[in-house]
Amino acid sequence: MKRRIYLKTLSLEEAQKRWKTFFKGLPKTEPEEIPVENSLNRVTAEAVSALMSSPFYHASAMDGFAVRFEDTHGASETTPKRLKIGEQAVPVNTGNPLPEGFNAVVMVEDVHQEGDFIIINAPLTPYQNVRTVGEDIVQTELILPENHQIRPVDIAALLAGGHTTVRVNRKPVVGIIPTGDEVVEPGTTLKPGNIIEFNSRMLAALSAEWGAECRRESIISDIKDLLKEKIIKTLNYCDFLVIIAGSSVGTKDYTPEILGELGKVIVHGVNIKPGKPVLLAAIEGKPVMGVPGYPVSAYITYELFAKPLIYHLQGLTPKAEKTVKVRISRPVFSSIGQTEIVRVKLGKVSDEYVASPVGRGAGAIMTLQRADALIVVPEGREGFDQNEEVEARLLRSEEEIENTIVCIGSHDNTIDIMANFLRKRYPLYSLSSAHVGSMGGIVAIRQAQAHIAGTHLLDEKTGEYNVSYIKRLLKDVPVQLINLVYRMQGFIVKKGNPKNIKDVEDL
Amino acid sequence: MKRRIYLKTLSLEEAQKRWKTFFKGLPKTEPEEIPVENSLNRVTAEAVSALMSSPFYHASAMDGFAVRFEDTHGASETTPKRLKIGEQAVPVNTGNPLPEGFNAVVMVEDVHQEGDFIIINAPLTPYQNVRTVGEDIVQTELILPENHQIRPVDIAALLAGGHTTVRVNRKPVVGIIPTGDEVVEPGTTLKPGNIIEFNSRMLAALSAEWGAECRRESIISDIKDLLKEKIIKTLNYCDFLVIIAGSSVGTKDYTPEILGELGKVIVHGVNIKPGKPVLLAAIEGKPVMGVPGYPVSAYITYELFAKPLIYHLQGLTPKAEKTVKVRISRPVFSSIGQTEIVRVKLGKVSDEYVASPVGRGAGAIMTLQRADALIVVPEGREGFDQNEEVEARLLRSEEEIENTIVCIGSHDNTIDIMANFLRKRYPLYSLSSAHVGSMGGIVAIRQAQAHIAGTHLLDEKTGEYNVSYIKRLLKDVPVQLINLVYRMQGFIVKKGNPKNIKDVEDL
Repeated sequence: MKRRIYLKTLSLEEAQKRWKTFFKGLPKTEPEEIPVENSLNRVTAEAVSALMSSPFYHASAMDGFAVRFEDTHGASETTPKRLKIGEQAVPVNTGNPLPEGFNAVVMVEDVHQEGDFIIINAPLTPYQNVRTVGEDIVQTELILPENHQIRPVDIAALLAGGHTTVRVNRKPVVGIIPTGDEVVEPGTTLKPGNIIEFNSRMLAALSAEWGAECRRESIISDIKDLLKEKIIKTLNYCDFLVIIAGSSVGTKDYTPEILGELGKVIVHGVNIKPGKPVLLAAIEGKPVMGVPGYPVSAYITYELFAKPLIYHLQGLTPKAEKTVKVRISRPVFSSIGQTEIVRVKLGKVSDEYVASPVGRGAGAIMTLQRADALIVVPEGREGFDQNEEVEARLLRSEEEIENTIVCIGSHDNTIDIMANFLRKRYPLYSLSSAHVGSMGGIVAIRQAQAHIAGTHLLDEKTGEYNVSYIKRLLKDVPVQLINLVYRMQGFIVKKGNPKNIKDVEDL
Repeated sequence: MKRRIYLKTLSLEEAQKRWKTFFKGLPKTEPEEIPVENSLNRVTAEAVSALMSSPFYHASAMDGFAVRFEDTHGASETTPKRLKIGEQAVPVNTGNPLPEGFNAVVMVEDVHQEGDFIIINAPLTPYQNVRTVGEDIVQTELILPENHQIRPVDIAALLAGGHTTVRVNRKPVVGIIPTGDEVVEPGTTLKPGNIIEFNSRMLAALSAEWGAECRRESIISDIKDLLKEKIIKTLNYCDFLVIIAGSSVGTKDYTPEILGELGKVIVHGVNIKPGKPVLLAAIEGKPVMGVPGYPVSAYITYELFAKPLIYHLQGLTPKAEKTVKVRISRPVFSSIGQTEIVRVKLGKVSDEYVASPVGRGAGAIMTLQRADALIVVPEGREGFDQNEEVEARLLRSEEEIENTIVCIGSHDNTIDIMANFLRKRYPLYSLSSAHVGSMGGIVAIRQAQAHIAGTHLLDEKTGEYNVSYIKRLLKDVPVQLINLVYRMQGFIVKKGNPKNIKDVEDL
């Protein structure tokens, strides 16, 4: 078989450095002008200053009378001042403009009215009870700097400052080309060998979360000319081109070759697991990424390399990921010389996060979907010891994890049913279960790694389930034993049991 | 003047309790079926189980030959086994279905080929190098529970499990009616007394962040019949009705009266500042909120009361807000008997968050727009002492705040210009400035409350700026003095200075 080899397998750090050096040189997308009210989460293309002051007139801050503060000078309980309504005192409501020449407002509660006069017992200070021009926003004042992601309160401030439109960076357009002879669109009637194309939808959703727009192209078979043609066509409209699968070194992996022909390969092959066959390139200055076809590899490499790029194109830098300290529940082994990203389930038991690694196959999307966090085994490490403390990057919020009931042990369908009812009734809570057998569950409880354990251990001496094991193995652990189901085992026979089967012997 | 009074001014806790008791009884919105690929951030209406296994056939996990593991029994370096290609060994690539009757794959690297035979030196175990049916997802397995907010990886899992559509809760529809004679649409040519209507846009953006859809109605003048008619019309289509302004006790505040006529007022008036005139009601089972017209009051009451409701209608509970411990930079005074929500700027100086209260006017949206966090002065407290440690709810991320350069002191336009350049060049960094005069800035540096201070203090003895003050007041503080601008003060005269003005005297 004809095989290609990776251009050069780089460390993750070196690959990230080369990629960043390239994309830092790319300008952000050009600006576009959009209505302020549609600008939530968009990024300002330039600084925005107030077109007008708010308020743009002196406004009464109270219901009462506009007066000249000079006329109130010396007023007191013993020497009240009388001001003529219409001349020296003009009725105003909250928000009304102050009539020309007036400079204070006396509250209606502080006034006695006698015919055409108001009587006041205390002097006013200049602009007392007045919202003066620019009290909130001063014309020309900076409302938003450049590269600011617009929040609801910014929408209010922009409108208050007289803007109806705002110049924002255009959303980067990501063109995604899924490839592969075996890959079919969701909903297709499947034949053995077919794989449903879901990677592009997953990457499109990730891109949307990061502020980009995605256009998915149709699936391209492993035919070099077809793929090359599609790449050229897609590059015409996109800011960032993504090709899914075909970046590895198999006989049908044409992407590295094509990208080398059309442009320059920056990185091909990174020493990470999963995600090794990632491919990063530039064609006529445009960034191009070849994403491995295994879904977990696709997700992880897309986060590592596409996310900072998509943010950069908008004039943003991604926020730091939320991490927590976790304790490893069982040893993790990893190859030295390779950075491994391990998916883990977390549980908060006795005030500590306990991390249990889940399956490591790059093809098992459910291992990622069920993971609570990712931990990284660095290139120079062979793994982690049991109980070692490591940093974990959260995939779910701490609150969700804290509200997760960790169930380890023997599995039963009732656990899925309970998980669903729990979520239905208490949306903040969830139940996470790892299936390691009854004894594994009891051990997890003893080591404070689980809140509940599923167990169905038969004591053959007594014919009783679980009780003797718990008494022996969890002697000092206060536990509550709840029986969820009885399983009845037997034969299903024809109605009326025509063959009169009563026993295993009768078979 | 005719005045109305609040039905009863409740504590915040009591108001929240009554409102929650009411809305907890409301069902979530009915389900709708949408394409999986458009379901990002939507909430499952019911549990979703896999329609099919993934893989749904035994698939080769390697490039090599499919074999029967039984045929490899006993193979070793000294006793290799020969298997006939086509009969006992069938070539397969990664992902190919295993031919009927075969149950293991030997990797191409582990095989010697001799004519029609492959020779293997080691036995295989059952399903070695095979991705068996359901390795990733088992048909009927729970993929997502009910009330789960869909992430990119969930989209992948749903598609992999055979779904092309998913039943999600319909987005709650919020109908928003802005009211007020003085309120005009953004873009209108303004006359004194006009106020730009931006509250509804701000609340619409907040609603969108929380997963709802908003429809904004046109502005309604303070005419009772018009408003009542609009309320009835809007209630027809929305899940939650919001009326902005008119909920207070002024003569033109008709909302409480109308809601009393059409339904039941649950809360009118809450002992909070800002936000006292908030109004919560139910009309034919539908939640209705009267939001105060001052923008800061609108924002804060909408977060307090609308947010949990909008989440509830989707089957969700809001995530806990991110809080941090902060130290108060100067005393905060508040009325006893009222919960006050104070906007603060935060700075991380010497590893501690220092909170400086900003303006407290409910009408000044910029005070909220510039705030980093909110602190709550409880009903029973008169305020906080200087240096007291309190809990602050973040409005910006910790990272953004840590990357904020805190500038306190005298203000100059160069600070705005620097703030913008900084953000342009280093999008993660920002400069926040509080204007408290030169001396205030020096004090802030001394108390480690600021990173930089603007100062322009003239020493009249030496005619020199700043230096003597810094030497005296910041004796033991290592500071760097950087001169940014010289201001030249003088007269602008006609070209050629025809009147020969040289001095103040010449005027």
